[in-house]
Amino acid sequence: MPCCPPITAGELSQADAEKMAAMFKALSDPVRLRLFSKVASYAGGEACVCDISDVGVSQPTVSHHLKKLREAGLLTSERRGTWVYYRVAPSVVAAMSAMLDLRI
Amino acid sequence: MPCCPPITAGELSQADAEKMAAMFKALSDPVRLRLFSKVASYAGGEACVCDISDVGVSQPTVSHHLKKLREAGLLTSERRGTWVYYRVAPSVVAAMSAMLDLRI
Repeated sequence: MPCCPPITAGELSQADAEKMAAMFKALSDPVRLRLFSKVASYAGGEACVCDISDVGVSQPTVSHHLKKLREAGLLTSERRGTWVYYRVAPSVVAAMSAMLDLRI
Repeated sequence: MPCCPPITAGELSQADAEKMAAMFKALSDPVRLRLFSKVASYAGGEACVCDISDVGVSQPTVSHHLKKLREAGLLTSERRGTWVYYRVAPSVVAAMSAMLDLRI
């Protein structure tokens, strides 16, 4: 797990807060969040950038948002031939979920 | 639960994405995230704004950030006498956690 204890466990350290805030920021845009859910729900857990076109924004905008999600660590990417394939980084997303889990 | 199916269930609708993006945005600032964890971990699940002072920012800044968290629905507040008391909104935070839960 990249980070952090559940929020009910105590005040986050400055370092952990900066790390997690950057991840939440990556999901703070509606288009980016829809793209993220699209990749996450794709058959096989992987989406080719070439398959992602019907989200109401241009292809360069799609690529820009996917790059932001990758930079935040929420997606991983791999180039195969002409296309880049994106996949959710399960441990990172699980860490965000666990941090907000009030049942822990 | 205010919103949404887990991200692996399919692409989020535009309306759901806007709703959830606003919540993630509320947690996208390190100071706000630390304040949030501080309230969430307070004894009794409730913190008086008068108790929150040692986070490295001024009291007006603390109030500003707590207001943002309240507006996003992540905290509830109640004025009692001189002070405002903050509490985590469990169903909202649980919804964010569940949405990112890849195990579902």
